[in-house]
Amino acid sequence: MNFFNVLAVEEVDIILQKIASDYLAEEEIIDILQGRERIVSEAVFAPVDLPEFNRSTVDGYAVISQEVMGASSSMPSFLECSHEVVMGTEADLRVQKGQAVYVPTGGMVPAGADGMVMIEYVEKLDDKTILVHKPIAPLENMTLIGDDLKKGEIVIEKGKKLTSYDIGLLVGLGITKIKVYKKPRFAVISTGDEIVDLDEPQKIGQVRDINGYALSALITELGGQINKKVIVKDEFNWLQKVLKEALEEADIILISGGSSVGTRDYTKDVMTSLGGKVLVHGISIKPGKPTIVGQINEKIVFGLPGHPASALIVFDRFVKTYMQRTLRRCEKELSITAILESNVHASPGKETYQMVQLMRGEHDWRAVPFYAKSGMMTLLAKSSGYIRISNNQEGLMKGEKVEVFLFQEVMV
Amino acid sequence: MNFFNVLAVEEVDIILQKIASDYLAEEEIIDILQGRERIVSEAVFAPVDLPEFNRSTVDGYAVISQEVMGASSSMPSFLECSHEVVMGTEADLRVQKGQAVYVPTGGMVPAGADGMVMIEYVEKLDDKTILVHKPIAPLENMTLIGDDLKKGEIVIEKGKKLTSYDIGLLVGLGITKIKVYKKPRFAVISTGDEIVDLDEPQKIGQVRDINGYALSALITELGGQINKKVIVKDEFNWLQKVLKEALEEADIILISGGSSVGTRDYTKDVMTSLGGKVLVHGISIKPGKPTIVGQINEKIVFGLPGHPASALIVFDRFVKTYMQRTLRRCEKELSITAILESNVHASPGKETYQMVQLMRGEHDWRAVPFYAKSGMMTLLAKSSGYIRISNNQEGLMKGEKVEVFLFQEVMV
Repeated sequence: MNFFNVLAVEEVDIILQKIASDYLAEEEIIDILQGRERIVSEAVFAPVDLPEFNRSTVDGYAVISQEVMGASSSMPSFLECSHEVVMGTEADLRVQKGQAVYVPTGGMVPAGADGMVMIEYVEKLDDKTILVHKPIAPLENMTLIGDDLKKGEIVIEKGKKLTSYDIGLLVGLGITKIKVYKKPRFAVISTGDEIVDLDEPQKIGQVRDINGYALSALITELGGQINKKVIVKDEFNWLQKVLKEALEEADIILISGGSSVGTRDYTKDVMTSLGGKVLVHGISIKPGKPTIVGQINEKIVFGLPGHPASALIVFDRFVKTYMQRTLRRCEKELSITAILESNVHASPGKETYQMVQLMRGEHDWRAVPFYAKSGMMTLLAKSSGYIRISNNQEGLMKGEKVEVFLFQEVMV
Repeated sequence: MNFFNVLAVEEVDIILQKIASDYLAEEEIIDILQGRERIVSEAVFAPVDLPEFNRSTVDGYAVISQEVMGASSSMPSFLECSHEVVMGTEADLRVQKGQAVYVPTGGMVPAGADGMVMIEYVEKLDDKTILVHKPIAPLENMTLIGDDLKKGEIVIEKGKKLTSYDIGLLVGLGITKIKVYKKPRFAVISTGDEIVDLDEPQKIGQVRDINGYALSALITELGGQINKKVIVKDEFNWLQKVLKEALEEADIILISGGSSVGTRDYTKDVMTSLGGKVLVHGISIKPGKPTIVGQINEKIVFGLPGHPASALIVFDRFVKTYMQRTLRRCEKELSITAILESNVHASPGKETYQMVQLMRGEHDWRAVPFYAKSGMMTLLAKSSGYIRISNNQEGLMKGEKVEVFLFQEVMV
């Protein structure tokens, strides 16, 4: 019988890191407005200062701060004021001693002035004179050229996923195009004589293609692209033909099911028949042990377990991480510190992944373990995330602090 | 001068809650494969059991557990085995005393059997006889009908945003269509003589439409739909015309800029000129004070500050929350508990929002306050989220535990 040569999680990580670091993801230039959630492939530097001119942050009067020093209601400063800055235009005048110029919020502060008095503290004496009732500190109520970003400063790091806020910032700098990594191309193959598609009639003994659709949705969510999604019966030639096509159309191929030791498990044999190298066959992780990782002509093939929960945990732990590495992601994954609500037993010698639901406690987050057999799909749909118990821990005790990794991609 | 009648954050919340609870979002039926990130408008119940038949979780033999009680290598149980269950077909036979039936992983366990012996613990004696070397507990290595979900059980609550895992689960149940709320329709109007669009040439004194694009990206990210995005000069008639159109095309209208007290601030007047009620004019929040909320014929209009950081904080705190309420969202917003890395001063009488960056400490998350004038866009792009300091707190001290609300939507 063909037993597994099971590798530790860390060993698999090292293998995948190596493959990912050798992998050169292709780049493309896209419109900034299409950029949300894409991964920047080249650091972006500010092409101009932001703001590009000294800007008022209030409606009021541009003054020389020294001129209103000590001003008060009983002893206001008198300033001559016969000009105003028109919004959206250059302030092509200079504030002289004894003068003030009206500037609306966001308008350009004219040269000479070093601060803005808010309109609330000003009284209009006549058409040409104002009274200022309050002093200002130098540079009060204004932002200076480059205060937000200086020309040449780094704006977005290589490997960052663009957020809506980044889009705003890049628009502010007048950047219209951006270089990003092409979306990783995936093929998702579900194997098994019992698997039927969503639109097929289902007979007793058959099940729907949960893995195929859940994996496709996850890949899309994470910024990948599904180039092929197919259900294959347990037949060597069929799987070989489909895998051959997948290698043409995708960079990362997922085959779910068929990675155990049963008679119908062709995944490994099909991979070697196409000249592939099987790098991993079995990982000491629970759930997810019967996982295969292979390489065929620079393409990576993951054989995932057939049980949905196992397949999706392995996806989250290895495939997602691999994809993030090929895209040189620079952010850190966020985990939530929580207090464990009940004891959790672990499998000695295996890295155990325990699903939990996060609940709000009075002062902290509580992690409530969720139990179910590994085939159960509700387990994942109802969990917030999981905790990892390393292979040298026997388990975790109620009340312990644990780190919860969320199923959503949250990076900071 | 027209001073603000400033409301407390809680008062604004009550007003918005009332409007949202009166609002009936429209529903639509969509294809399940288009369902990711949509909000379910009607609870979903399981139409069938999951699994629909007793399933094996291993490759092995279906047996009556009593028959292998006490089995060991030295004293194996002999069982007659001349049948096997073919994957994806109904097991239309019954396991009798003294018998075993081969079942692959995921196959149907035949009637009569109450457990599966893994293939590893079985030896084939001849074509019709196996030796079992290990006992099993009743129900070992199999899942029962309805173990994952029972017919009629609730699968997805009303108001839940569908995740990739939910899609998998719904596919598993054979659900092809789902009832969701229509995407909220937004109009995003940026006002200001100084604002130029991304493709226009920019002169000194002008700035790009940061707010319009950042808000549009955020709305899309949160599941809203941009039906109109437009830049309007500070002209009463122009804004009135655009707002009139927006009321036809959208349910939620955002007008950024023009909500302060300066001479060019028409937002409030335009709203009343169209028969609207101004419900809020000024909120005791920092940043974000000059915020307007109005209602015109059942539509809601938010007047946001012109400063990008202020506009986006107000969006996050009020507009996002309002939108989630109209969609009857059932999840809770996740916040991260972190240790404050330096003192933060607050404005007495105002709810203060302090941007922070989360850093990983040795045992916990650290919140590093980010300071910048409120117009600064880098502030938001570089922050992980914010902490809220209530209006009766004077500030927070270094080392205090704080809750960080992330800019990403993370709900559990």
